[in-house]
Amino acid sequence: MSKYRIGIVGATGYTGSELVRILLYHPSVEIAAITSESYQGKLFSEVHPQFQDIFEPKLISIYDLPEDLDLVFLALPHGVSMDFIADHKDAKYKIVDLSGDFRLSGKDVYEKWYQKEHKFESGFEQAVFGLPELFREKIKPAKLIANPGCFPTSATLALAPLLKNGLIDPEHIIVDSKTGVTGAGIKPRENTHFPVVNDNFIAYGLKTHRHTIEIQETLSAFSGGHCTILFTPHLLPVDRGILSTCYSKPKEKVDEEQLNKLYRDFYKDEFFVRVSNDIPHLKKVRGTNHCDVHVSYDDRTNTIITIGVIDNLVKGAAGQAIQNMNLLLGLEEKSGLQSVPIQP
Amino acid sequence: MSKYRIGIVGATGYTGSELVRILLYHPSVEIAAITSESYQGKLFSEVHPQFQDIFEPKLISIYDLPEDLDLVFLALPHGVSMDFIADHKDAKYKIVDLSGDFRLSGKDVYEKWYQKEHKFESGFEQAVFGLPELFREKIKPAKLIANPGCFPTSATLALAPLLKNGLIDPEHIIVDSKTGVTGAGIKPRENTHFPVVNDNFIAYGLKTHRHTIEIQETLSAFSGGHCTILFTPHLLPVDRGILSTCYSKPKEKVDEEQLNKLYRDFYKDEFFVRVSNDIPHLKKVRGTNHCDVHVSYDDRTNTIITIGVIDNLVKGAAGQAIQNMNLLLGLEEKSGLQSVPIQP
Amino acid sequence: MSKYRIGIVGATGYTGSELVRILLYHPSVEIAAITSESYQGKLFSEVHPQFQDIFEPKLISIYDLPEDLDLVFLALPHGVSMDFIADHKDAKYKIVDLSGDFRLSGKDVYEKWYQKEHKFESGFEQAVFGLPELFREKIKPAKLIANPGCFPTSATLALAPLLKNGLIDPEHIIVDSKTGVTGAGIKPRENTHFPVVNDNFIAYGLKTHRHTIEIQETLSAFSGGHCTILFTPHLLPVDRGILSTCYSKPKEKVDEEQLNKLYRDFYKDEFFVRVSNDIPHLKKVRGTNHCDVHVSYDDRTNTIITIGVIDNLVKGAAGQAIQNMNLLLGLEEKSGLQSVPIQP
Amino acid sequence: MSKYRIGIVGATGYTGSELVRILLYHPSVEIAAITSESYQGKLFSEVHPQFQDIFEPKLISIYDLPEDLDLVFLALPHGVSMDFIADHKDAKYKIVDLSGDFRLSGKDVYEKWYQKEHKFESGFEQAVFGLPELFREKIKPAKLIANPGCFPTSATLALAPLLKNGLIDPEHIIVDSKTGVTGAGIKPRENTHFPVVNDNFIAYGLKTHRHTIEIQETLSAFSGGHCTILFTPHLLPVDRGILSTCYSKPKEKVDEEQLNKLYRDFYKDEFFVRVSNDIPHLKKVRGTNHCDVHVSYDDRTNTIITIGVIDNLVKGAAGQAIQNMNLLLGLEEKSGLQSVPIQP
Repeated sequence: MSKYRIGIVGATGYTGSELVRILLYHPSVEIAAITSESYQGKLFSEVHPQFQDIFEPKLISIYDLPEDLDLVFLALPHGVSMDFIADHKDAKYKIVDLSGDFRLSGKDVYEKWYQKEHKFESGFEQAVFGLPELFREKIKPAKLIANPGCFPTSATLALAPLLKNGLIDPEHIIVDSKTGVTGAGIKPRENTHFPVVNDNFIAYGLKTHRHTIEIQETLSAFSGGHCTILFTPHLLPVDRGILSTCYSKPKEKVDEEQLNKLYRDFYKDEFFVRVSNDIPHLKKVRGTNHCDVHVSYDDRTNTIITIGVIDNLVKGAAGQAIQNMNLLLGLEEKSGLQSVPIQP
Repeated sequence: MSKYRIGIVGATGYTGSELVRILLYHPSVEIAAITSESYQGKLFSEVHPQFQDIFEPKLISIYDLPEDLDLVFLALPHGVSMDFIADHKDAKYKIVDLSGDFRLSGKDVYEKWYQKEHKFESGFEQAVFGLPELFREKIKPAKLIANPGCFPTSATLALAPLLKNGLIDPEHIIVDSKTGVTGAGIKPRENTHFPVVNDNFIAYGLKTHRHTIEIQETLSAFSGGHCTILFTPHLLPVDRGILSTCYSKPKEKVDEEQLNKLYRDFYKDEFFVRVSNDIPHLKKVRGTNHCDVHVSYDDRTNTIITIGVIDNLVKGAAGQAIQNMNLLLGLEEKSGLQSVPIQP
Repeated sequence: MSKYRIGIVGATGYTGSELVRILLYHPSVEIAAITSESYQGKLFSEVHPQFQDIFEPKLISIYDLPEDLDLVFLALPHGVSMDFIADHKDAKYKIVDLSGDFRLSGKDVYEKWYQKEHKFESGFEQAVFGLPELFREKIKPAKLIANPGCFPTSATLALAPLLKNGLIDPEHIIVDSKTGVTGAGIKPRENTHFPVVNDNFIAYGLKTHRHTIEIQETLSAFSGGHCTILFTPHLLPVDRGILSTCYSKPKEKVDEEQLNKLYRDFYKDEFFVRVSNDIPHLKKVRGTNHCDVHVSYDDRTNTIITIGVIDNLVKGAAGQAIQNMNLLLGLEEKSGLQSVPIQP
Repeated sequence: MSKYRIGIVGATGYTGSELVRILLYHPSVEIAAITSESYQGKLFSEVHPQFQDIFEPKLISIYDLPEDLDLVFLALPHGVSMDFIADHKDAKYKIVDLSGDFRLSGKDVYEKWYQKEHKFESGFEQAVFGLPELFREKIKPAKLIANPGCFPTSATLALAPLLKNGLIDPEHIIVDSKTGVTGAGIKPRENTHFPVVNDNFIAYGLKTHRHTIEIQETLSAFSGGHCTILFTPHLLPVDRGILSTCYSKPKEKVDEEQLNKLYRDFYKDEFFVRVSNDIPHLKKVRGTNHCDVHVSYDDRTNTIITIGVIDNLVKGAAGQAIQNMNLLLGLEEKSGLQSVPIQP
């Protein structure tokens, strides 16, 4: 059986290398082309030496991307993806865009939160938000997928069952998230310098982080009503992983057992979401496409605490993109994505 | 001028070694005795080799503690301190107890949250909660100080100005805290094994951590009204430091500038509390007795976010104990406690 | 096609969980039984929660191990393996022993370096040292494999080409190795307590580490002459990985180009050994069965510097054991072992 | 008593902030001026926020440095220091240069190892190599001190007693060093990006690192004979600290006890060098000016193993510079430098 031909646009960053890491052993696809403007002409393994002797194709320019591909992943920065999509709107291949360019509801909200002009407004109508556990049926026939952000994936899966069932006050939801440093990208910056991050911890982006609105719009769309999210990210001295601690207020009396049952029912057919009795930690999902969710109820303060844990580069980026690819190509959803965390 | 004679009971743990580290260069006191039951007869530097050639007294038994001391620090486990205090209630020296045995309001609440019988109920009346920034005048004449817990110090200083001024709804306060591993003590356990903690992150003690009630009672006592705290601790892969992110709801309209002014006024005479415009991080206070506080207001969600950062072994334990000692002995409050963080 | 039935004896430690992690997706084998004395009756995922919903068999006692297995891995402590092997010397299955009990040349040298009585001397004759790159043909027909130690794997592969070709003085070889903490096992100890290891570095086991003699005997056996190794291990604040820096003296004039050619020729048919121009680092092999080797010549001091890098739990333990299994069962040697490092 | 007036040229880096950290509480000096070209006009605490409310002078340009200083520290890059020194050769103040510009024996050797033109050759005659334990009497009357490099400090103190006493073959000495990331400076680079360094380990600078020749020349000068050093640095995932493992060959029969006595005698009057029975680790000296040395003899391989441990920013840079300052100004050598490591 011939394999689906896949293109990866943007090989330089962590998302690009992570896509390759997972796709290499996928049984039904082959990486037919991989691009990088800054490294074109070099071998992929010159940029990511861990692929020495394993995967060493030559990187090509985005302008040389072949047309006869079945699907293209865009691992491009925000603002660059929209140009590619506008330019290739008649291409035959499907696109999974890992940037934030088409995740929100429209141009206005994008420009407000991204502080950047949006140049391809009509793309918003085409794009489907690629969180399979919540929007699977919309994803399958889509041509353009807006692959979710890392924080939104963890928070949305941790809160969706509560909002969908109308159990909590939608206007008072707090998401306190903690992420590993790969979320900030491969390019060295002052705030990712080892002596700055190591043995340290800090909050950032208070009140204004772009994922705030993505979480809010996604949960609103899924639950069919408005909600308001307060979101605070923090930077952990770890490579990978996001843990989001979510606080919400039940509208009526609940108990923990009932909530646990609700979560287990809600996710009972989901391979990648594991509801766990123990509090999950980052290493339990590292390198995998799992999202581990824990739910707890504090009757003393009448607060529901839900925790969602993912690997930000897998379920929060490349893995989820491949999950979407499987849906778009009619493959088994977990194909190529079954793996055990490397722990420790 | 002769120096005050200080005793340290319990030299084995991190708190014991941290007390010595700071007291060694204190201009007005000398360490006259230091005890350890498990290591008695050994040199202090055999237990803590970093003191080689610096401080090498012989460790004595608690039963050989001299009586002619001016002040004794108790660096003992919860439940053991109360016995010492009961047995030495007629001693002439003052006591700063670093355990949790006398921090709460009474026997009942202690037994409920510590799940342990309290055997010296009358101690609660004597003990003064040793958070100098909030209770300085009560501390000065006291004979027994209950030195605050690490999480409560960070959270209480971050929230006190709001509650004292009646600005927030006292029944809906969330404290999401993240701590370094030294908070778990010097004894190796499964959850502090390097491969378990490194490159990892987890929440723990949901709903039931003892510091919940300590924060709640302290803020209630200070503000003169009841409040309810939801507290969630998390374990960071770092040695030292606590960052608490606190969420509260203003009763009436506020703005960020007004809040900043409030905090700067509130702490304007406090040497150890720094209100900072930038979000503070752990290394900014590491090894020092500072508590850095940041305040922010999100009008979109009508939420006040306050962040408090300390070194859990200094302002969260030994440093604060020495700050209390200075008050008890009539010394300058910051004596021996001025230092610059070792950063990085 | 029916799969080979595999047993794993000793599921509790890191080696046990690592064997399962890799074997789960091996195309030609199934895990038919897995034992733990301390956790028998519990689910494997209760001991290693990362396997939740992935692999959840019940752990059985070693005494209930079925006989109709094709191969058994022993992930037992030194001294315990020898008893199992003595007791099951007539079993039909092949055994890959991951302990150090049969790696050395005999009882005397074992007892000297392990400071422990050896109770199954005849096992030494049967056992084949399982370093496939050096002893492949002996491994294939063997019934009992002594799977190499982690340090010896990195050092032996880094030095073998030089000794085999008689290029260096065999009596003056220094191996300065640095290892991650998982090498010390899953059980918490004082020297693996997070605050002891984090942001720290130390040498240990000077002159007496057991792997000294294993490296020395292996290189002597392979090169057909005596050699003497000085070996110094150090503990890194990382989870996984060993980097060994090896210093040796050429007997006659050499140059770097010639050495590089020698290494590339020597390992040209070896899938798992990569000779690299750049200096390899731990993450380049993390989670994989690769050993990356770098060779350099300093003519100023007339010294050859070779560096070998492995993942101590994979090429240094479980991965190499599975590589040996593949040889023993007549499978493709790299079957189930192809993977890309999770980096970062 | 009036205090000595000190200038710090180059406030931006780790060395600059570390000088301030230590000098602030020095009893006999005051920081009279501090310069930064890139941040001139800003407050020192804007560059290093940990000094908020502690030390907040305005940074001035190097061109505005006052002349009436007693001593100036140069915390400038290699190549820049030499220009300052040439331009200020008639200044009345003494200079402690923390760069490598005048550490070597002359222009030729500098240009060979630094691959950079040296523009102030006559400075080499004036400059005294500032390792007080070896060159104290030369330092005291000097006007210009070349403050030693970090690696050389650890290696030289670990090897000096052997070479001075003619015990080892001076032509076969190996120094295998491991350093924390602050040694690479405050400026973010690819090889100091957190996800690159964290949980990782690598060798670098094989055969060509500049500190090779500094160690070699220093030990040759001190011992009065030529020696040859092979030096290999490695990068640890830690902030601070260097551990150097040194291998040398005794000329005649030695034993460990004799070596230990030699080291203890050699360093018996040195406050900052501690000879330790246990193997020292980085945290034992962190934040302090100590160098901990351990000596061991392996009779099986006839090799002496010596280990030297320092904090690269203190004894390896700023602390040693202040120790030199104390000597130059006639102050007590350990003045301002007594402190206990922050461990953990």
